[in-house]
Amino acid sequence: MLKQTIQRSLGCLRNCKPHSAHFSSSSIMAKSKFEYVRNFETDDTCLRNCYIVVRLDGRNFHKFAEQHNFTKPNDNRALSLMTRSAQSVMEELDDIVIAYGQSDEYSFVFKRSTNWFKRRASKLMTHVASQFSSSYVFYWREYFGEQKLLYPPGFDGRVVLYPSNHNLRDYLSWRQADCHINNLYNTVFWTLVQRGGLSTSQAEDRLKGTLAADKNEILFSEFNINYNNESPLHRKGTTLVWEKTDESTTKKIKLPQEEEKEITVTRTRKKIAALTCDIIGDEFWEEHPDILENDS
Amino acid sequence: MLKQTIQRSLGCLRNCKPHSAHFSSSSIMAKSKFEYVRNFETDDTCLRNCYIVVRLDGRNFHKFAEQHNFTKPNDNRALSLMTRSAQSVMEELDDIVIAYGQSDEYSFVFKRSTNWFKRRASKLMTHVASQFSSSYVFYWREYFGEQKLLYPPGFDGRVVLYPSNHNLRDYLSWRQADCHINNLYNTVFWTLVQRGGLSTSQAEDRLKGTLAADKNEILFSEFNINYNNESPLHRKGTTLVWEKTDESTTKKIKLPQEEEKEITVTRTRKKIAALTCDIIGDEFWEEHPDILENDS
Amino acid sequence: MLKQTIQRSLGCLRNCKPHSAHFSSSSIMAKSKFEYVRNFETDDTCLRNCYIVVRLDGRNFHKFAEQHNFTKPNDNRALSLMTRSAQSVMEELDDIVIAYGQSDEYSFVFKRSTNWFKRRASKLMTHVASQFSSSYVFYWREYFGEQKLLYPPGFDGRVVLYPSNHNLRDYLSWRQADCHINNLYNTVFWTLVQRGGLSTSQAEDRLKGTLAADKNEILFSEFNINYNNESPLHRKGTTLVWEKTDESTTKKIKLPQEEEKEITVTRTRKKIAALTCDIIGDEFWEEHPDILENDS
Amino acid sequence: MLKQTIQRSLGCLRNCKPHSAHFSSSSIMAKSKFEYVRNFETDDTCLRNCYIVVRLDGRNFHKFAEQHNFTKPNDNRALSLMTRSAQSVMEELDDIVIAYGQSDEYSFVFKRSTNWFKRRASKLMTHVASQFSSSYVFYWREYFGEQKLLYPPGFDGRVVLYPSNHNLRDYLSWRQADCHINNLYNTVFWTLVQRGGLSTSQAEDRLKGTLAADKNEILFSEFNINYNNESPLHRKGTTLVWEKTDESTTKKIKLPQEEEKEITVTRTRKKIAALTCDIIGDEFWEEHPDILENDS
Repeated sequence: MLKQTIQRSLGCLRNCKPHSAHFSSSSIMAKSKFEYVRNFETDDTCLRNCYIVVRLDGRNFHKFAEQHNFTKPNDNRALSLMTRSAQSVMEELDDIVIAYGQSDEYSFVFKRSTNWFKRRASKLMTHVASQFSSSYVFYWREYFGEQKLLYPPGFDGRVVLYPSNHNLRDYLSWRQADCHINNLYNTVFWTLVQRGGLSTSQAEDRLKGTLAADKNEILFSEFNINYNNESPLHRKGTTLVWEKTDESTTKKIKLPQEEEKEITVTRTRKKIAALTCDIIGDEFWEEHPDILENDS
Repeated sequence: MLKQTIQRSLGCLRNCKPHSAHFSSSSIMAKSKFEYVRNFETDDTCLRNCYIVVRLDGRNFHKFAEQHNFTKPNDNRALSLMTRSAQSVMEELDDIVIAYGQSDEYSFVFKRSTNWFKRRASKLMTHVASQFSSSYVFYWREYFGEQKLLYPPGFDGRVVLYPSNHNLRDYLSWRQADCHINNLYNTVFWTLVQRGGLSTSQAEDRLKGTLAADKNEILFSEFNINYNNESPLHRKGTTLVWEKTDESTTKKIKLPQEEEKEITVTRTRKKIAALTCDIIGDEFWEEHPDILENDS
Repeated sequence: MLKQTIQRSLGCLRNCKPHSAHFSSSSIMAKSKFEYVRNFETDDTCLRNCYIVVRLDGRNFHKFAEQHNFTKPNDNRALSLMTRSAQSVMEELDDIVIAYGQSDEYSFVFKRSTNWFKRRASKLMTHVASQFSSSYVFYWREYFGEQKLLYPPGFDGRVVLYPSNHNLRDYLSWRQADCHINNLYNTVFWTLVQRGGLSTSQAEDRLKGTLAADKNEILFSEFNINYNNESPLHRKGTTLVWEKTDESTTKKIKLPQEEEKEITVTRTRKKIAALTCDIIGDEFWEEHPDILENDS
Repeated sequence: MLKQTIQRSLGCLRNCKPHSAHFSSSSIMAKSKFEYVRNFETDDTCLRNCYIVVRLDGRNFHKFAEQHNFTKPNDNRALSLMTRSAQSVMEELDDIVIAYGQSDEYSFVFKRSTNWFKRRASKLMTHVASQFSSSYVFYWREYFGEQKLLYPPGFDGRVVLYPSNHNLRDYLSWRQADCHINNLYNTVFWTLVQRGGLSTSQAEDRLKGTLAADKNEILFSEFNINYNNESPLHRKGTTLVWEKTDESTTKKIKLPQEEEKEITVTRTRKKIAALTCDIIGDEFWEEHPDILENDS
């Protein structure tokens, strides 16, 4: 299936016309003549001392999920692949201090004082979108095995700035509250369909106008499901943070005129941890005091 | 190698603490309380009646090329994969009227009057970067066969606006002049190394301060190479445009009370053509009058 | 009435506390410590090759007009003062190629290729707003004589970019069409009130839902007024352009060994002309070919 | 000197050509045809939860000062007029919580949570520039008496955002440190010229390379001047803040079936105070706790 050249692959690569022999000798001069077009680039440096958030969203993932037979209401393989891709982004851009994902979206938070890409918004968001997308295809097989990826998926992104710790926490709370609301709805909806025998439109009607308490009640009284015992991965989404671990290794050394001895070398390493906990309350932030930067 | 769950893959997925039973009932209220953070998003709509150019550049592709044993000075598989990925972007976003690529970069030009994503710069550039990157991994095997892709590559992007046809043509001319200058240099450099037996630093010294004419002369007098006969793919880069073709199909039809007869149905289809021609001169633009939009 | 010092004028200038004697010696060091705050300034350079339009609007001019007894529906003194102020702006910033004013608004168009203030939007618009406002007060007496200006008026402004000649003309047409619509309405409204004896709310009711033709008809059949004979200043607003005039001066000169003779020296001078003509049709633009810059 | 009409003032108001009779009837349709140009306006809303600083600078004030015979190194009339104009701005825009001025510049700080003009940068800065400039001319006579203002002066402005209290204080400290450095230099320079008999270029040479301590020493040992006893207005610039004062008024009232009695009504009023104190240290901020908004 290997195609050696672009000609074969595209079927239409053409060398239009023999080009002028004069072209090459005049091209350096030519280049400088055209270079003024650089001045049309605009500066999109992000305001200093603000958290830079890049959020990605899957493009047409509803259809993508159908075509790839994702389990309803949550597909653990797909969620894991999202998180694996997010991890790949964080490893590339280690000024990301926290990432939060749910469904087909992921948010990446750069530290307040980051100077990556000189804080240029376009560079930051395209690099995140690119690394995430190439990783999604690259790691597909680790989560979906022999099930083929049918086409290359797309994600779009945006940059949002948050000037204070308070605003940033509210942003992340907003995304986690969104995860909760959607997951509660989806859990009841698919339980009504898969176990209650309702059609999708019947389930929709049933849920119209219901509050969170009503949905919890349907799950509990009709299906004996305590929503709070459902998988925290689904209820809470995934939070990626850097964790420091001490790694100790033992070496034998022998110094001149001494006997050989064993020494233990301890090295602190940073690695990414994926958590499924509440990030709305204070507890998470007290346990991870390094994420937010104070600004007195 | 299939990993069923994220737990195994990341080794550290943890459900931090039992979450409060009160969480779910208060979360809808909570969400609305946090929703103000949306107002921190800024509007980055591109100025109307301007061409929108998104240019992607490979991140650390020098190293990527080394690690994947790309042929010097040009690797046709790599160039073809770039173009295949660009084609995938154009198919997704058919308001792109022309794309131009060389080396590890690709420029995509949206038509002046496009309203894709309401002309929001961040959406346009992240979607292009994402689609290109996922395609690069997806189509890798078609061009590199059994040679493994070692890690997911990254591309960064930017958006530049051009208010006139003249400016847009100068932008594309700038990129093609850049292609020419780099390729001439690389061709001589690697000829001196591969066939002339010079070390890379000797070749570098040899070329210091030489003009285009000098480089042509070295190729011609020392290696009997006429640069102008080198592959146009390398000298000119690749230009992607939409071409209309008429496709005729023959069908047999039989109407009541008539004899069966053959009819020919002609359908106009748009498809992408990859060209390796000069786009600096007027000829290309005269042959493709649909790319530029006039604005009297 | 002259107040010599700010103390008297504000009544509360206070030297808070004796400042530390150490302050002065450490202040240079201090300044460099604070200078990072400069990096919070953002670049707001206007896209190249676009017309830059600054439009000013009077703040609360409805009330201002009442308080200063402006004639209804148009006050020629006020219109003239607006134009005098606009002229002052153009004289300061001679890259303005055309200005258009009506009612309490004025638009200033910088030439496409201007590099004033390095095309920084904030500098351009604040300078225009400032020069206009100081001129308005400065020249007040020339138009209002002994009638006192009661307080310093305010104008706000904005910057809009237009990438093509076509767009710019449409912008100016939009403002002139707006002038026409408002003036027609105001002319009929105040004629009904001042000559027809209607109250303002009766006049409002009478005009509800009427088209331009209806309004023309009311003027003509009821008051024998042909709207098209009304003052062009009111119907068309004021357009400021640069005009070149040749100024000839006669000098007597006496060269050695020659008789004294008279010579005529002709100098081309640019000065501002105020026109009250239609700028929607082609005629104006054909007569003033230097305003628009072509971009092939 | 009153000119009744613009014709006389500009000498060139012309009604170009008789306009088409069809114009008026088609103009409403016309206007809607042109209205698309509105979409070229861009949104320049300032990021939420940041202090918005508008700084104005005099245009060519060196020359303006010479032409109006400003006293060297400081002219109290001019400084007072600047502050009077700044006060006029604050009274118009009462979301300004502090303003700081020195020399020919003034900075205005809008409160973090302001929603004036929907936080649109262009509106905020042009309104400040406009109000300041018209006030400068309006109040000129109060400070300069019979000395004529020769022409309307100009000021340009910019907007800068500061996300934290810390950043804002550093901004104001930067401006006050700048005031100190300039004033120390100017004080020594003009003392050397006015009392020491040096020419301006001799004074310049004398001060080349001197530190703050050296300058203080010159003043003290050669002219017996203790710089710290110089006017705080010149050393510290002017800080405008809102101050609350209780105003008590006594009224006589008489209720039915009661005797007439006197009552005291206390009303809290905000008014602007002009201070000349240090705003770099903590003291000022402790005494004015309402200026900064906390954001936990």
